[in-house]
Amino acid sequence: MSQYVVGIDLGGTNIAAILMDAAGQTRSWATWPTEAGSGPAGVIERIIALIKFIMDQNGITAQQLRGIGLGVPGLVDSREGKSVFSPNLPGWRDIPVAEMVGREISVPLIIDNDVRMAAWGEKLLGAGRGWEDVICLTLGTGIGSGIFIQGKMFKGRDESAGEIGHVTVEKDGPRCNCGNYGCLEMYASGRGIASQAREALERGGSSLLLDLAGGNAGSITAATVCQAALQGDNLARQVMEKTALYLGIALAGLANILNPQRIVLGGGVMGAGELLLEPVRRVVRERAMPLNREVAIVAAELGERAGAIGAAALARQEFILGEGRTKWIW
Amino acid sequence: MSQYVVGIDLGGTNIAAILMDAAGQTRSWATWPTEAGSGPAGVIERIIALIKFIMDQNGITAQQLRGIGLGVPGLVDSREGKSVFSPNLPGWRDIPVAEMVGREISVPLIIDNDVRMAAWGEKLLGAGRGWEDVICLTLGTGIGSGIFIQGKMFKGRDESAGEIGHVTVEKDGPRCNCGNYGCLEMYASGRGIASQAREALERGGSSLLLDLAGGNAGSITAATVCQAALQGDNLARQVMEKTALYLGIALAGLANILNPQRIVLGGGVMGAGELLLEPVRRVVRERAMPLNREVAIVAAELGERAGAIGAAALARQEFILGEGRTKWIW
Repeated sequence: MSQYVVGIDLGGTNIAAILMDAAGQTRSWATWPTEAGSGPAGVIERIIALIKFIMDQNGITAQQLRGIGLGVPGLVDSREGKSVFSPNLPGWRDIPVAEMVGREISVPLIIDNDVRMAAWGEKLLGAGRGWEDVICLTLGTGIGSGIFIQGKMFKGRDESAGEIGHVTVEKDGPRCNCGNYGCLEMYASGRGIASQAREALERGGSSLLLDLAGGNAGSITAATVCQAALQGDNLARQVMEKTALYLGIALAGLANILNPQRIVLGGGVMGAGELLLEPVRRVVRERAMPLNREVAIVAAELGERAGAIGAAALARQEFILGEGRTKWIW
Repeated sequence: MSQYVVGIDLGGTNIAAILMDAAGQTRSWATWPTEAGSGPAGVIERIIALIKFIMDQNGITAQQLRGIGLGVPGLVDSREGKSVFSPNLPGWRDIPVAEMVGREISVPLIIDNDVRMAAWGEKLLGAGRGWEDVICLTLGTGIGSGIFIQGKMFKGRDESAGEIGHVTVEKDGPRCNCGNYGCLEMYASGRGIASQAREALERGGSSLLLDLAGGNAGSITAATVCQAALQGDNLARQVMEKTALYLGIALAGLANILNPQRIVLGGGVMGAGELLLEPVRRVVRERAMPLNREVAIVAAELGERAGAIGAAALARQEFILGEGRTKWIW
């Protein structure tokens, strides 16, 4: 009897699902709108329906489903199977997600933060596969990370480790939502890059940026800045150089503290590709200590499916390969 | 039959030795001059003689000695029992210290970097005892650290983790020996504090500092700066405030990355006591993420004996309590 797992990536807009077989191959992929306005109970009903849908569609029986991996945005208590707080999902506070899903579909279930699930994806099946000491950063609207030490994810005592986006890189820099000043997120997240570009425009200087954004500075995104930089626009290039410098400083610090083998960079901002990677590697080589600067810095491979693939890959590792020590059934 | 271990802290000037009993009590303490000029073979002969001396002096037989812990400055390969390179000890390059000592005294032996041994001291018998997730920093001439995760020391793949002194805290700051700019060491090590004070004097401004240093700016040390600050000297206070700000920024980053329970600060710079601790705690509370800012920041307890106590305490843990998995005999 063939064995399968399902990986779910819950987002503010969409729920993505992956059906993965015992060999780690993705067999099917589906997304449904989250309909976050329907509240936690409604959203969890849709998650359950989506799992059943992807199983039915592929003729998978309840006996063949060995486990579910579930990535949830925001603060997650993975030991209790709870969503503690999710700013992009109205009403999500202390929601026992694992228990609510497990009541309807009785298989082992593992839950974690969506960024950590994406990190698991890159670690097990993407740019980090085969390496033990890997740090995976997602440079999206904000910045999140998953830190692997000797093959295991390191989450810290309160599951609050890995907040690399809120390391100070400029002590007098702009104020961040977290209360700190000059966080890495202010320079290297999608939001940070767009806001740096808008400020540079306000200070004057001609740029393609306004044209690319249809004349509206408010519409500038990190993708607009990348596009302009690739077309040789000076102002956009300067913004991206600043991004690379601060990102390089943060990664050099991280390499000095953790001595990883590999750093994997993913998320929307990595649409910039080598435009960002090349100067980041140079800054890390210049600033990290001799052994630590040898860390490889590479682009993520799984794209927008990383979260769902990671959730499925982690469920496969825990519940089919049986490498994990946990068998969580709620 | 009572059991004992010996801990050795090798320094550029002195070799310190501790005799510790099975209960973790220090029974005896001795220091001899290193006579580093006699080269690796000469220094190792003195280490062996000192171990024998402290045993004889206390009537300990070879059968009662269960193990030796040995802290060596510079880069150490603890798995191979080697000193890779030690800038303060002439001729120390790829010296098989453990094997050379073990040839003369046939007991299990554990070796590591001196700062990591001091961290073991604080973790097992000092300000970190009873805590699992602890980071111990030594703010001495330079800055070193030992990171404990779930009670185990985390050293990284190349034993090059924990280089917190070389994290960038000011991107355009002064150049460090390591090649980077604006490293934490430039502001919060003994050398960094003294050099910040000298530069502030050069920029003008009256201060007690010159008087305290006997009129010679070259004689100013971190201790002089502390003394002047405690006496209300404005320039010295400003230097110490800058030290606290950068140290707080680095520790907030560390807390955001590692989510520790406790950070223990030791080394000569901590002679400043609350003058430094209080503002450092405030910066960390202001800059770290909610769960991470709850980390306790405390002063080390073991003083200058931390290295030898740590080496002995680690040998006791490994070879008497048998908690370690390693039984290293060379």
